[in-house]
Amino acid sequence: MTKGTINVSVENIFPLIKKFLYSDHEIFLRELVSNATDATLKLKHLTSIGEAKVEYGSPIIEVKVDKDNKKIHVIDQGLGMTAEEVQKYINEVAFSGAEEFVEKYKDKISDSGIIGHFGLGFYSAFMVAEKVEIITKSYKDEPAAHWTCDGSPNFTIEEADKTNRGTEIILHIAEDSTEFLDESRIKTLLLKYNKFMPIPIKFGTKEETLPLPEGADKDAKPEKVTVDNIINNTNPAWTKQPTDLKDEDYKSFYRELYPMQFEDPLFNIHLNVDYPFNLTGILYFPKLSNDLNLQKDRIQLYQNQVFVTDNVEGIVPEFLTMLRGVIDSPDIPLNVSRSYLQADSNVKKISSYITRKVADKLKSLFSDNREDFEKKWNDIKVVIEYGMLSDEKFFEKAEAFALYPTVDDAYFTYDELYNKIKAKQTDKDDKLVILYTSDKEAQHSYIEAAKAKGYEVLLMDSPIVSHLMQKLETTKEKVSFARVDADHIDKLIDKDEAKVSKLTEEEKISLEDLLKEVIPSEKFMVQLETMNSDDAPFIITQPEFMRRMKEMQQTGGGMFGMGNMPEIYNLVVNTNSDLVSEIINTKTRKKQERLISQSLDLARLSQGLLKGKELSEFIKRSYEMIK
Amino acid sequence: MTKGTINVSVENIFPLIKKFLYSDHEIFLRELVSNATDATLKLKHLTSIGEAKVEYGSPIIEVKVDKDNKKIHVIDQGLGMTAEEVQKYINEVAFSGAEEFVEKYKDKISDSGIIGHFGLGFYSAFMVAEKVEIITKSYKDEPAAHWTCDGSPNFTIEEADKTNRGTEIILHIAEDSTEFLDESRIKTLLLKYNKFMPIPIKFGTKEETLPLPEGADKDAKPEKVTVDNIINNTNPAWTKQPTDLKDEDYKSFYRELYPMQFEDPLFNIHLNVDYPFNLTGILYFPKLSNDLNLQKDRIQLYQNQVFVTDNVEGIVPEFLTMLRGVIDSPDIPLNVSRSYLQADSNVKKISSYITRKVADKLKSLFSDNREDFEKKWNDIKVVIEYGMLSDEKFFEKAEAFALYPTVDDAYFTYDELYNKIKAKQTDKDDKLVILYTSDKEAQHSYIEAAKAKGYEVLLMDSPIVSHLMQKLETTKEKVSFARVDADHIDKLIDKDEAKVSKLTEEEKISLEDLLKEVIPSEKFMVQLETMNSDDAPFIITQPEFMRRMKEMQQTGGGMFGMGNMPEIYNLVVNTNSDLVSEIINTKTRKKQERLISQSLDLARLSQGLLKGKELSEFIKRSYEMIK
Repeated sequence: MTKGTINVSVENIFPLIKKFLYSDHEIFLRELVSNATDATLKLKHLTSIGEAKVEYGSPIIEVKVDKDNKKIHVIDQGLGMTAEEVQKYINEVAFSGAEEFVEKYKDKISDSGIIGHFGLGFYSAFMVAEKVEIITKSYKDEPAAHWTCDGSPNFTIEEADKTNRGTEIILHIAEDSTEFLDESRIKTLLLKYNKFMPIPIKFGTKEETLPLPEGADKDAKPEKVTVDNIINNTNPAWTKQPTDLKDEDYKSFYRELYPMQFEDPLFNIHLNVDYPFNLTGILYFPKLSNDLNLQKDRIQLYQNQVFVTDNVEGIVPEFLTMLRGVIDSPDIPLNVSRSYLQADSNVKKISSYITRKVADKLKSLFSDNREDFEKKWNDIKVVIEYGMLSDEKFFEKAEAFALYPTVDDAYFTYDELYNKIKAKQTDKDDKLVILYTSDKEAQHSYIEAAKAKGYEVLLMDSPIVSHLMQKLETTKEKVSFARVDADHIDKLIDKDEAKVSKLTEEEKISLEDLLKEVIPSEKFMVQLETMNSDDAPFIITQPEFMRRMKEMQQTGGGMFGMGNMPEIYNLVVNTNSDLVSEIINTKTRKKQERLISQSLDLARLSQGLLKGKELSEFIKRSYEMIK
Repeated sequence: MTKGTINVSVENIFPLIKKFLYSDHEIFLRELVSNATDATLKLKHLTSIGEAKVEYGSPIIEVKVDKDNKKIHVIDQGLGMTAEEVQKYINEVAFSGAEEFVEKYKDKISDSGIIGHFGLGFYSAFMVAEKVEIITKSYKDEPAAHWTCDGSPNFTIEEADKTNRGTEIILHIAEDSTEFLDESRIKTLLLKYNKFMPIPIKFGTKEETLPLPEGADKDAKPEKVTVDNIINNTNPAWTKQPTDLKDEDYKSFYRELYPMQFEDPLFNIHLNVDYPFNLTGILYFPKLSNDLNLQKDRIQLYQNQVFVTDNVEGIVPEFLTMLRGVIDSPDIPLNVSRSYLQADSNVKKISSYITRKVADKLKSLFSDNREDFEKKWNDIKVVIEYGMLSDEKFFEKAEAFALYPTVDDAYFTYDELYNKIKAKQTDKDDKLVILYTSDKEAQHSYIEAAKAKGYEVLLMDSPIVSHLMQKLETTKEKVSFARVDADHIDKLIDKDEAKVSKLTEEEKISLEDLLKEVIPSEKFMVQLETMNSDDAPFIITQPEFMRRMKEMQQTGGGMFGMGNMPEIYNLVVNTNSDLVSEIINTKTRKKQERLISQSLDLARLSQGLLKGKELSEFIKRSYEMIK
């Protein structure tokens, strides 16, 4: 047996880095600015513990694009490197300086915010540069060093005359990456990845108008000065304590995150946990209605204030991905498969922590100001209803704040609704029937019929509401939901009350025969009912079960094959109505048929079923009749 | 100045590979199977040119999961390696064997299908394995070698007793990757990445029933045998010549690509080009209507029969991403940013080649069998219309096949339509007015009024049709589109024909005053018109410009702010209708008002504007009237 050591061939590692290090080359800038931030925070830490005997000052990072010479400069005022350190940290690829630093000072750095995580990324510079220079001066009293490498494994290092502390990285951009010499491209990248990093980042300059001194002459011109253009907010709201933030601060941070959002968020949830995982962040409930940016403005994931991704699938429960805001956690593994992510115990804990915080917030909003919560209900219901369907724990918590609004704009919790309608809406089989409409306008006459009985009618118009009702029916006992047009109201809540029929059994039979001859049986099932004489003569209904199954299929779920079933309608005929009496007593068959057709048209109109040619003809006929 | 060589520290390269090589760890299997395929194809090539004096045979690749011992085996019957070659190719990380092979035989390999591209990926095994073994026997007459490495830079190599040719890779799966010991997971991965690779891949076995021999006894039981379960199709349709494929072959390949698709594609386009770039593939036009898998079943990108991604954004023009199928090209750069991809000259050429092929195919389908093309129009129009809007060249080509269907199911090209309607539908200003409806049912009475004049009415119901009309109006001269309910038909195509009014000017003024008093001015602009006596008495219209601008806003584009403008409706009153005469001649104001209200309700009904409470009341009133 032979033993040996794997020889990593340097000639071939550079192409590999270039090809595989990151799938997106633009990442190089995030890496270099992260390193610069890292170097500055390390200096801050060393001065704070007295290890570095220099003035920390107010260091900034500068990014410069030199299009003419095809160069990008990244300059920091951090701790810098001696020639020896360059040798150690740069020439030995994949030696993470940050890791060693953290190891050395691990008991002292709790809050100093070392980034470290991206320390490996210096070589990502070679994804876009054909040559890289480092000019660096350590905070230690040693000469500056100048390192140059053209992407081959060979480098040169010599003394430099740089006198101020810090590191300058110079990228000589390669032919295939000249897109990065575009100032607006670099600005976009800085704003994407570095917008909330903790050290100020300068990119160019801007003009500012100084305020006039007090008591200045009226005609005095305000002085203009050129100042550094700092592109980042080094203290984003999520890094602060909730007690230090006012409502307006949260709103203005929202606008900072999503500059294209003109509408304020409805409310926010400040996340802050140290143990068993570290996570900070702010989530916002947006106003979802008519929001075209829904897909674009998503929750952003950061690690130590560095933007990582806006794809939080697997980290945030799916029903909360409609929210907006920021999550910052160093404890979320990156570059792993989604299935691994979902199996990771930290990620599981994070996900359920977020769910719990959202539920708690909703509960307190409801308790603290119910009126305001009700006003927001229409905007937040989709998230809550979706959560109730997909997360059992959220379903239980939502009992306290999920609302069921009526067509008259009363908002009930389930318990309140139950107590309110129990007496009146329990049927002969002791089952509570909850009536609802999916469309106040389209089902108006049915709603009115229910209200005339003293029943409450809920307005349930979310896309997934059929699934929610199905779940409530199986969770609660002896409860069923019925849309107001699912049957005649006395059948929907059947109390077994006997009604006196104006018609004899014989008349009923001959009426039924007549109706079945005139009305196409493939379209409507005729159903004679003894109702009040002032109820509508003809009513078209659509049985609950089939309709709901079809709806559930359309939104995913339900019973297989139901989506293709034909629409089924019943025609309820009120045998006690005057019009029906008239139909029976009319002598000529032709006139009978006309009465039936016109009544059927009116019933179809009420259910939105009279369309096209038939509607045109109905209108024409009606004009004739009023003439 | 000091010179030096960068020292790639091996201790640190493994964590780097593990972390960064691929963002998705599952890729390891694609890499190993690609290497196995590579080794087999190389042997095939060497035997074919007589370099290797061995029998090529029918080699397969086998993948085995050993859950109990936490191992995955990938076994090939390719050329194998000698101990010396293991030393060279494996111990020197990032030394691509395939590259050297291609270099050596480059003038001979044109069609032997060496994969090569993924040769670097052996080390991706360490993304999921804590220890990797290679047992390999070269086709050369040398002893087999057994290499072992536990993820540290140290390895051992010794002689092995393997006697059959080829390489076996054994992965000892790490604790954090046990998900890959699930057989169904591995099967899913093989089907995702390797389904169409050129060497048979065995994964387990299956039972097969042998056919009974001819003349066998009636009661003879068919024999069952256990055979290799080969998971891939080594000769997918796109690698064949179009002349070798029948329509049924294309359809069955479609079902192979998308097993959850039960509907046949409408037609396919076989792509095949060598120069200036290499690309093969088959694109399918699916039946888009009601397709729930639209997002899931997308065009798949392959490189040499290895699946790469189903995100072809930037490679295929956006309007064609609704298509399905396969594109196989080694000339598409991977792992680059989208902006780089879009700027790449090969990719640009590929994109316009695909567009041209699609346009050519559509043109030939139209010419070869117009009737069939018309039948398919409803399913393909969205793609074509979207293409016409987004690609100027496609717009020009589409002149030949873009269809404009009428409400009576006649299909015209633009030129045909122009010639058909020019005589009748040109107005007094010499402008051609193209009438259309967005909904045959909802705008039925308006369509009838236009048809009564002998006009053609197009059915334009795609979501982006307002943008297309806008484009046609600016491209063609003196043409405008008008929806049939945009005004009274005599105004839509105004020919300046004088009509005799039954009313005097005085009567008109008093009628207008009366109408303005009864009809709420914030809802309808009253407009008196001298029409035929049998035209409808009241008609509600919605001006074209505002409505279209609002629609364009809703689908992106149009003038800013238009989306929030209120809906504007006009009420056209036919002063020559009998009903209007009656309104004027009715003596009591109350009865006049009732006539006007009922007529207005009927007009609103015709435009779908009578809803909710007003509709319920209208129906109640109508029941009273027929009694």
